[in-house]
Amino acid sequence: MSDLGAATLRIRIDLGYDGTDFSGWAQQPGRRTVEGELSSAVTRVLRAAEPVRLVVAGRTDAGVHARGQVAHADIDPVAWAGLPGRSNRMPEHAAVVRLNGLLPPDVVVRSAVIAPDGFDARFSALCRRYRYRICDDPARADPVRRRDTVVVRGGPLDVAAMNEAARDLLGLNDFAPFCRRRDGATTIRTLLQLGWERVQPGVVEGVVVADAFCHSMVRALVGVLVPVGQGRAPRGFPAEVLRGGTRDPRVKVMPAHGLSLEEVIYPADGDLAARAVEARTRRGWSGGLPPPGTGRCSRRSPAPG
Amino acid sequence: MSDLGAATLRIRIDLGYDGTDFSGWAQQPGRRTVEGELSSAVTRVLRAAEPVRLVVAGRTDAGVHARGQVAHADIDPVAWAGLPGRSNRMPEHAAVVRLNGLLPPDVVVRSAVIAPDGFDARFSALCRRYRYRICDDPARADPVRRRDTVVVRGGPLDVAAMNEAARDLLGLNDFAPFCRRRDGATTIRTLLQLGWERVQPGVVEGVVVADAFCHSMVRALVGVLVPVGQGRAPRGFPAEVLRGGTRDPRVKVMPAHGLSLEEVIYPADGDLAARAVEARTRRGWSGGLPPPGTGRCSRRSPAPG
Repeated sequence: MSDLGAATLRIRIDLGYDGTDFSGWAQQPGRRTVEGELSSAVTRVLRAAEPVRLVVAGRTDAGVHARGQVAHADIDPVAWAGLPGRSNRMPEHAAVVRLNGLLPPDVVVRSAVIAPDGFDARFSALCRRYRYRICDDPARADPVRRRDTVVVRGGPLDVAAMNEAARDLLGLNDFAPFCRRRDGATTIRTLLQLGWERVQPGVVEGVVVADAFCHSMVRALVGVLVPVGQGRAPRGFPAEVLRGGTRDPRVKVMPAHGLSLEEVIYPADGDLAARAVEARTRRGWSGGLPPPGTGRCSRRSPAPG
Repeated sequence: MSDLGAATLRIRIDLGYDGTDFSGWAQQPGRRTVEGELSSAVTRVLRAAEPVRLVVAGRTDAGVHARGQVAHADIDPVAWAGLPGRSNRMPEHAAVVRLNGLLPPDVVVRSAVIAPDGFDARFSALCRRYRYRICDDPARADPVRRRDTVVVRGGPLDVAAMNEAARDLLGLNDFAPFCRRRDGATTIRTLLQLGWERVQPGVVEGVVVADAFCHSMVRALVGVLVPVGQGRAPRGFPAEVLRGGTRDPRVKVMPAHGLSLEEVIYPADGDLAARAVEARTRRGWSGGLPPPGTGRCSRRSPAPG
């Protein structure tokens, strides 16, 4: 809650960015961050006296991209209503045009709307979907995609083997072996989907969905599966690491630039507030399995092959 | 032919590049060009006394990308044979590794092999395939792809209308209305394919295949079709421009960064020399329709819708 209390209006902002030239999402003094750029654009567009604070669904690391990031801000309703100025536009439309006019080319706001009651960009989310893009044939590496594709040497990846091994990681687990340690933070998560597909010759993409992720988790999950795909580790290796219970030095955290936050999935408007309460209070206990009927967040086995 | 005469070995080099930070392919004093970077890498790897000259299939403009560019160089066979040094590698493998070690990250050599007899990167080519990538929904613009995707405003493109209009341009025609004037150069070309497809929500891609292209031709062909797709011009507009016979100020040459040279198609090895003689002597007369049996170069109507 902002200091403005009941007088504020919560705005949901959907955005994408090229993470290459950012020190991640989270604002840090002296660093170029997505939060810093967006907060300063929102503050300017609203002519707010204080920097507008943002709450985000996925705090992406340095170099990680986003195509479906979601943030919220609690703002002055009068400033929002005044956005169209003398134009005939709705505030929603004026906000997008003005924000994109101020933002650098590596950040694009897709929409900015009044959030439904109970919406919290972070805590209302049911799950997050990430994508990891790998080129496994360096001779086919595409220089145009070098900012969002990690080139791995060691021969073509066996996608079927990776998918088989990935199944052992699905479900409610303590992902401590795949998380950077943070005191007091739970590492219990529900991994809903982890599947690989060859999308074109020389390129495989992984889709990873969980209720939430701890720090470096997606890149460590990819890092435990790539050796399986290369035949350097047995198919049981990821399960063995998971059972180990602590960070495993054999697991390489893969580079950030192959990773992109593709989508954040929220429940129907009526369930937003309940979900936020549940996620705040119970995360780490139940793992917060999403309510039934939210298909995009349900558990799915990787496709064969 | 090089000054080295019969003693030279012709090498075929396949490469890709991100054109963003290049002043195009062709070497120019004081400019960063793909030819300049590649020639200097080849010269260094071979320890040649003189800069190695390159002949290229498609002289791309500033900002244009390539995923399937082809060049050749006539080099000293002794230097080629010596490439593996004390390694067990074949010269083909050593050349790729060493060239990519020297080249900047926005150029990737995919292969370097001894060219078959009669091969000429430019004149043996049967046809060139380009791709043009457009985002027609600015709210969906992907910042990660902003270097190879042109954002157009004015509503979603009607792909079926663009494909219908594109049919009128296929075949052997004088493409002067779509070419930047160059004295003495013919503008007669055979346009073999020009088709559009919606590859994902908000993104359409065009594929353009011709025996060869004159300067700015693909970008002008795209420029005459976009207004049709937006409903701002009738479906007969491209045909009308073609019939006009001279450069038409109503046709906007589209930005370079949406364009990528995807593939250069050559005949079977036995037909290389004959094709080169034909292309050198007859281009501008017959339009050099490719010989039968070269499916990827044959004329194709755009897919409906």
